[in-house]
Amino acid sequence: MPLGERQLISRILKLSDQLKPRGRKRQSTVVAGIGDDCAVLRVPGGAELLVTTDFSLEGVHFRRDWHSPQFIGHRCLTRGLSDIAAMGGIPIAAFLSLALPSGVSQRWVDGFFEGLLQLAKGFNVPLAGGDTTQSADKILADIVVLGSVPKGKAILRSGARVGDQIYVTGELGGAAADLANLVLRNASTIRRRKTAWPQPRINVGRILRERGIATAMIDISDGLSTDLAHICHESGVGAEVWEGAIPRATLNRCRVGMQFALHGGDAYELLFTAPEGKRFQESISGVPITPIGVIVRGKTISLLRADGSRQPLPAQGWEHPRAAPT
Amino acid sequence: MPLGERQLISRILKLSDQLKPRGRKRQSTVVAGIGDDCAVLRVPGGAELLVTTDFSLEGVHFRRDWHSPQFIGHRCLTRGLSDIAAMGGIPIAAFLSLALPSGVSQRWVDGFFEGLLQLAKGFNVPLAGGDTTQSADKILADIVVLGSVPKGKAILRSGARVGDQIYVTGELGGAAADLANLVLRNASTIRRRKTAWPQPRINVGRILRERGIATAMIDISDGLSTDLAHICHESGVGAEVWEGAIPRATLNRCRVGMQFALHGGDAYELLFTAPEGKRFQESISGVPITPIGVIVRGKTISLLRADGSRQPLPAQGWEHPRAAPT
Repeated sequence: MPLGERQLISRILKLSDQLKPRGRKRQSTVVAGIGDDCAVLRVPGGAELLVTTDFSLEGVHFRRDWHSPQFIGHRCLTRGLSDIAAMGGIPIAAFLSLALPSGVSQRWVDGFFEGLLQLAKGFNVPLAGGDTTQSADKILADIVVLGSVPKGKAILRSGARVGDQIYVTGELGGAAADLANLVLRNASTIRRRKTAWPQPRINVGRILRERGIATAMIDISDGLSTDLAHICHESGVGAEVWEGAIPRATLNRCRVGMQFALHGGDAYELLFTAPEGKRFQESISGVPITPIGVIVRGKTISLLRADGSRQPLPAQGWEHPRAAPT
Repeated sequence: MPLGERQLISRILKLSDQLKPRGRKRQSTVVAGIGDDCAVLRVPGGAELLVTTDFSLEGVHFRRDWHSPQFIGHRCLTRGLSDIAAMGGIPIAAFLSLALPSGVSQRWVDGFFEGLLQLAKGFNVPLAGGDTTQSADKILADIVVLGSVPKGKAILRSGARVGDQIYVTGELGGAAADLANLVLRNASTIRRRKTAWPQPRINVGRILRERGIATAMIDISDGLSTDLAHICHESGVGAEVWEGAIPRATLNRCRVGMQFALHGGDAYELLFTAPEGKRFQESISGVPITPIGVIVRGKTISLLRADGSRQPLPAQGWEHPRAAPT
């Protein structure tokens, strides 16, 4: 049964209320939320505001026959929160623009919001507004996340310096390998274990900023090779990546192929640089931190193989599901 | 020729730079804009933040064969700015998420940004970020506008009180009558004069707030009858509208039909309430202000006809172009 716009807003308000953070320290940032022309927010004094917007489009970023609505909702918000994490910021509020074609079931919509709002609850982020409308034939979501960071402390892509070490959080390549498996085996659905759903690294990003560790940072949404190229381009430097050091995800008890770890997107781990000799733990907030290379002079990004040979590492970030046959 | 994501960002940066406000007092709110994980903004101290998001979807809000790209870009940003105006706010920055199918020409994209950025320049609003991606088959835009308002001063929909007079800015029904003409005459394009493009009433909204005139306010995006119903619902009141007082737009030297003025959307004029006897000019910032009714007890919204008869005024806001045959 298709939902009208007004029904949809009522459901969102009801679900938001059910999943509202309770008992924990509340941020009283939202003065007025869903139901007026704008949301009204109170922003922490002395802070700078972070703003990020990310599409999640059916047929481009997800497919209804491949992904559960809960996963799609979870990843939709992850995309926004991950950008806040990559600046070392704290999320303040999320806004969702959602367009649904007629024929989308209430069950699908409830599942989507369940995934999105459970994640929002975990990070104490209120869903403070957005837009809802009917679309022609596909589900279209655009998530906006606002965050805050102390004045002048946002960690940009442009801060990497020659000699800095390069690090990644967690493990890479899992999501891309999952997708490739699906296409190759012609399976009908990605049944990704909930424990393997991507997690925005908000706490890691904040700690890296508070302790003055990271000089430049980005989240790996497009793949390590592409996102490292962004840092190098913005910082005017090159890089050397140690192939053997790259932490690869495990899928079906095997490590995923190196190409997934190097170029696979949709990982939402953090890639950052820190001055050589800067000391910090091997894991932060329960997430392993692995050194994978070093920033060098010039513009070249090269891969140092296990056999000692060196080759260029082109930015070959993987495409979203649209690359797969439909 | 379809544009790649990177090319698109380059073009936006170039166009943004060309249309950057010069010579006027600059708001130095954008610390870091397009090109990092998030935009970084400085928000005025002691202010509350306004946030609004609005879709502009091909086939729902516009059609490429009906509207020029300049008009589509202009109206895309108008939708966001108009929501800021309806709170009595000042716009700070805009963010655009834009998904383009392959085959959209560079000329179309340039036209779209020309329309959007010319309007942004007029209100000194930087385009500070967003998202770009490829879509399956339709142009999808989502505009986010941030604004500010002094603490506690945002004009909500819920502030109307019994006895308040009801006012509208400008004239109503022009856009809806245009669209109806197009459908009836089976014309190929809406060639709306640029002087008739919708204008966000930012200055009027700000002045109404600064002078403490408006008790409740909304922008007429869905049609007078529907948007007045929003104010009445949120304020827990009813209303009486004087049919003869409603300012109707002129099209081809004739006044548009009353049904367009009562129910036609896409107007982006302001609808507000003010205490009886509150004195202010008949035009603010060059825009005429017309009293059209009064807030009453109860939940009923009625229309007082010229012959003295009274009838219910149901919320029959007009639909977007999707209602028209495709």
